[in-house]
Amino acid sequence: MFDVCLLGTGGMVPLPYRYLTSLILRYNGTTILVDCGEGTQIPLQELRWGFKSINAVLFTHYHGDHITGLPGILYQMLNAERTEKLILMGPKGISILENMINVLFKNISFDIEFKELAEGEVLNIGDIVVKNTPVWHTVTCYGYSFEVKRLPEFDVEKAKKLNIPVKLWNALQHGQVVQYEGRIYTPDMVWGKERKGLKVSYSTDTRPTKSLIDLIKESDLFIGEGMYGDDKDLEKAIEKCHSTFSETAHIAKEANVTELWLTHYSPSLVNPVKFIKNATSIFPNTVIGKDLMIKSLKFSP
Amino acid sequence: MFDVCLLGTGGMVPLPYRYLTSLILRYNGTTILVDCGEGTQIPLQELRWGFKSINAVLFTHYHGDHITGLPGILYQMLNAERTEKLILMGPKGISILENMINVLFKNISFDIEFKELAEGEVLNIGDIVVKNTPVWHTVTCYGYSFEVKRLPEFDVEKAKKLNIPVKLWNALQHGQVVQYEGRIYTPDMVWGKERKGLKVSYSTDTRPTKSLIDLIKESDLFIGEGMYGDDKDLEKAIEKCHSTFSETAHIAKEANVTELWLTHYSPSLVNPVKFIKNATSIFPNTVIGKDLMIKSLKFSP
Repeated sequence: MFDVCLLGTGGMVPLPYRYLTSLILRYNGTTILVDCGEGTQIPLQELRWGFKSINAVLFTHYHGDHITGLPGILYQMLNAERTEKLILMGPKGISILENMINVLFKNISFDIEFKELAEGEVLNIGDIVVKNTPVWHTVTCYGYSFEVKRLPEFDVEKAKKLNIPVKLWNALQHGQVVQYEGRIYTPDMVWGKERKGLKVSYSTDTRPTKSLIDLIKESDLFIGEGMYGDDKDLEKAIEKCHSTFSETAHIAKEANVTELWLTHYSPSLVNPVKFIKNATSIFPNTVIGKDLMIKSLKFSP
Repeated sequence: MFDVCLLGTGGMVPLPYRYLTSLILRYNGTTILVDCGEGTQIPLQELRWGFKSINAVLFTHYHGDHITGLPGILYQMLNAERTEKLILMGPKGISILENMINVLFKNISFDIEFKELAEGEVLNIGDIVVKNTPVWHTVTCYGYSFEVKRLPEFDVEKAKKLNIPVKLWNALQHGQVVQYEGRIYTPDMVWGKERKGLKVSYSTDTRPTKSLIDLIKESDLFIGEGMYGDDKDLEKAIEKCHSTFSETAHIAKEANVTELWLTHYSPSLVNPVKFIKNATSIFPNTVIGKDLMIKSLKFSP
């Protein structure tokens, strides 16, 4: 199961009824947090996935509403007596996080790695493949995709034909190379048809861009910028480098994603549901993101 | 009216149902915020006293749960197009705030003054007299008192006896010196009996100390440390330099304050009301502080 939770849905400032936008993803023992503005530790406590289990925090960019919750999260990790290394990653400019930590903490009992991601760099965090693309904001800002691969089908006929001992089937199917009675067996000897994995993508603080469509292509779930619901706010969206519901719905449609969640609402957007038709008329499978909305994605049968 | 609002009641970390401890006071056009941990901007929004109106932020000390909400509050002030100078004050070590601001902000369009308060320094912020005393924590930490003075009674007999023209009475009573028809009139010519002003005091993160009793003496309202409700946690309180309900109730009693509000609860103290008797058995007029609890203090008739 590939679990995702949208921790908050606000942009710019946390509101009494809306945490700042942040995403957490969990797959096969690996947990990644994306952005942490002021207060993100609160929904993280509610979620109860734990602070120690977070392997990496990714940042889309370094505006205050995406980073100022980091000290509180580090404090929670210290409280939980974390010893494992934490990786902080994002576009160029990550020294702002290092500087903030140096100002606020005398010493931290676990290692922190600061990693600037090159544009388009692909990396594996546990079994999650993370890709990025620059999007279009007032500062350098990345959109991210998160993919988990699925093993090919087990081809029982092929295994039988090649006289693979049954006791080796499971290890081979799970990608291990096995030496047995003087012979070497490789996974391709039992693998059949390729199978589609799962893909979640995430982008806030951007105007619509071609690069984003390319990144999020065929996602099972795309979580995207919903700063303005009303099409009348298009001018404001252009001026401030954000997007409207309908613009993001167009992106989702172009990229042929399965489902779209909107998030990162302007504080002025008190009731996003009011404008849902501006998105669903373009991309029907749009959901108005809500704080602590969870989805567990499964491989199709 | 001297208005005070306890914005939050948590210690260490903000909880889903409890903001971090912070106090705001307002009198005669002057507003002072005391401490701002992660998320304090949220109850401040709920309160609707405005971000621009805050003249000064006082800090008891510089632990994360008392300072990391400052960037969010500065951001709100920028958003509100503040131009007035903001004063940040606290014990020695205030450079941590300056450094944090320098890391997170490129430029701020209003002036910020950083002022380290000497132990026992008395200062006037508007019509509020602020006093401090060092308390007993793991780092330098101040308790504060906030006093508003009341003018003496108007002594009509005295004014008549001295032949003060009636048209000057109001100005003189309000403390002005008036020159009229070649004669100088001073307020003492109309002032009668002294009258008690109002006093609010505030202290968290401390063991009980004599200096605190002296500072808060005769307060109309004392807002004090309630980290642990159960007397069984005394050892923990001693170890971590905090106080129990009963210890703070003793302080309130010794200082002969009128009313005590407890705050700064440990995250482990889920239901502080459960332990109220540990305080009321010592100091009956104890109130279990709650987020956004407001009191408007008036001069006695």
